[in-house]
Amino acid sequence: MPTQQIQIFDTTLRDGEQVPGCKLNRDEKLLIARQLEELGVDVIEAGFPVSSPGDFAAVQAIAAQTREATVCGLSRAVENDIRVAAEALRPARYPRIHTGIGTSDVHIQHKLCTTREDVLARAIAAVKLAKSFVEDVEFYAEDAGRTDNEFLARVCEAAIQAGATVLNIPDTTGYCLPQEYGAKIKFLHENVRGIHTVRLSTHCHNDLGLATANSIAGVMNGARQIECTINGVGERAGNTALEEVVMILRQHPYLDLDTRINTRLLAETSAIVSHLMTMPVQPNKAIVGANAFSHSSGIHQDGIIKHRETYEIIDPKEVGVADSSIVLTARSGRAALAYRLQKLGYDFEKPELNKAYASFLQLADRQREVVDKDLHQLVEQEKLVAAN
Amino acid sequence: MPTQQIQIFDTTLRDGEQVPGCKLNRDEKLLIARQLEELGVDVIEAGFPVSSPGDFAAVQAIAAQTREATVCGLSRAVENDIRVAAEALRPARYPRIHTGIGTSDVHIQHKLCTTREDVLARAIAAVKLAKSFVEDVEFYAEDAGRTDNEFLARVCEAAIQAGATVLNIPDTTGYCLPQEYGAKIKFLHENVRGIHTVRLSTHCHNDLGLATANSIAGVMNGARQIECTINGVGERAGNTALEEVVMILRQHPYLDLDTRINTRLLAETSAIVSHLMTMPVQPNKAIVGANAFSHSSGIHQDGIIKHRETYEIIDPKEVGVADSSIVLTARSGRAALAYRLQKLGYDFEKPELNKAYASFLQLADRQREVVDKDLHQLVEQEKLVAAN
Repeated sequence: MPTQQIQIFDTTLRDGEQVPGCKLNRDEKLLIARQLEELGVDVIEAGFPVSSPGDFAAVQAIAAQTREATVCGLSRAVENDIRVAAEALRPARYPRIHTGIGTSDVHIQHKLCTTREDVLARAIAAVKLAKSFVEDVEFYAEDAGRTDNEFLARVCEAAIQAGATVLNIPDTTGYCLPQEYGAKIKFLHENVRGIHTVRLSTHCHNDLGLATANSIAGVMNGARQIECTINGVGERAGNTALEEVVMILRQHPYLDLDTRINTRLLAETSAIVSHLMTMPVQPNKAIVGANAFSHSSGIHQDGIIKHRETYEIIDPKEVGVADSSIVLTARSGRAALAYRLQKLGYDFEKPELNKAYASFLQLADRQREVVDKDLHQLVEQEKLVAAN
Repeated sequence: MPTQQIQIFDTTLRDGEQVPGCKLNRDEKLLIARQLEELGVDVIEAGFPVSSPGDFAAVQAIAAQTREATVCGLSRAVENDIRVAAEALRPARYPRIHTGIGTSDVHIQHKLCTTREDVLARAIAAVKLAKSFVEDVEFYAEDAGRTDNEFLARVCEAAIQAGATVLNIPDTTGYCLPQEYGAKIKFLHENVRGIHTVRLSTHCHNDLGLATANSIAGVMNGARQIECTINGVGERAGNTALEEVVMILRQHPYLDLDTRINTRLLAETSAIVSHLMTMPVQPNKAIVGANAFSHSSGIHQDGIIKHRETYEIIDPKEVGVADSSIVLTARSGRAALAYRLQKLGYDFEKPELNKAYASFLQLADRQREVVDKDLHQLVEQEKLVAAN
């Protein structure tokens, strides 16, 4: 089977930016949009133009700046939202309006306070209006994760007939298990008339830690676009992390699914977004965390020193990280200590090394990490004699 | 089907503590162990006794302190490791020795530099030796994720015959996709002689962001223990996050799988571990992140104010968080502003509210968050008149 291209729809500037504390100014948004284009994302969701004058201006500026990627603006299935989004996107080379409405019974009854038939009618009207402004219209069925599949299929068919080019199936509350979400995409892929003329999209939230797995289940069952953010930022526990889904597809070539992302820019992009949004990335974050490629236990260090692939599936250079690191702590073994001492110019025979290791462990039990300066002191204090 | 109990094996103090910068002293370890027992974990992996004198002492102290949970110590399939682990665990009411060896070809050839037959022999000898000290012996097949299933099954059978009570199937490098990992557990569940007399365990790493999904795939295919850590701390991108797997099982009762965890202690436990390990939890971390239950976009805030379940699947109180929060930013709508103004005692009619909202948006476009003080000022500056 030839490799299928999965489009990456980045919503760092929309779903990510709406998070407490993450607000960006126009220049910061332009800088991130430029970085995303360089990274190779297919679609940049630049904002929600009707939400505030500042966001309108930012979407407009990103639309004017971007040359290769599609620029998308969010709107509710509300006439004014769609008109304002169209206006903001006017300078874009490839504009896309993203519009939609809640389709789950809990949203229909308790938020929209209406009926399924009314939701269907509003969905059709919204897509038609958006289509009168732009060719590329993405429809979202909010809370699709909890929407009855039969009704969801009806909404999808109606949106296709009204002119939608992309159908977004969000797991808005992050509730689905991967097999449930995969089965939902499969059901739509197999039961919606006209589905093969449009692109199905995943949009998963991470409330239970499953956004990445759900997105992958989606593309394994027929979706061809993943909505995601850098570092997984987003409402509540965040969205699918771009860097994770991209690297999963890259690392599992037998899936015959890949993206256009230049993975060597992942670490840099993560750092820029984290810095501008003042949104820390935890050290144990997959792919882009500070510790993602650092090894501290003796067992692992010994393995890595002998042969990198024993404990590492990704060469750190592939994601723009200089090198894996060997950190010396009380859980490090003789092999790691000898390796580091050698790098510092100390080449000890076994008895000297054993002596050094005993002193090292005493020191390491007292402090979190043993650094090069500590090792020089240790060699001096213990009067260790190098082999050559 | 009656609900099956999944045991929670917490390795925060072993796989978590071996991380750069996470080192704990004896008193800190004792405090965390006490908290874990209160949380309701079934097994506390307290450390790797042979690794350093400090870790030996900590394991010994935890063994002496713990009354309800099993206390486990790690060892390689090396005689001295196992003897030292047994010694450290002597004070435990329910001691368990965890021992094992690499079983994948890359580990056998490049780290152990030996043959499959030799690995099999060492595995048997290790389990037998551990069994001479304690009744409860857990065997780990390191890098099981990349181990050929037929050979893995042979190793598992041999470990069972040698006396193992638990078989740990680690995805050491975090490479597996959920369906691959689930299929591996299913294969063992169906093909290993004697498997029903022991407990199969998952131990997943998060290098690709799939540890949680893989662990759930494991228990859906026959595993009955999950190895995990608080906040997902651990080597490189970390381990499976305890809080995520526990809440997934609790939120999907139709799986008929549950744990003994008192989820109301999750937030508190997360904070203690993060503080003592100086290991930040990112705001968008599932379940325990600062933003996990905060809502900032206008669409979501409107939904939450009308009916909590529109955007929240978990009641924050269930995990020990006081309440969900409504944060006012430039993406907030009129509903959220009116709600907050009401809480501050301002009850405006629509025209006044619209005026307030316009001023609010101008302010919110300039700053990251609008707090109560800002709102009082805004009402005063705009000379807004309340309805009553």
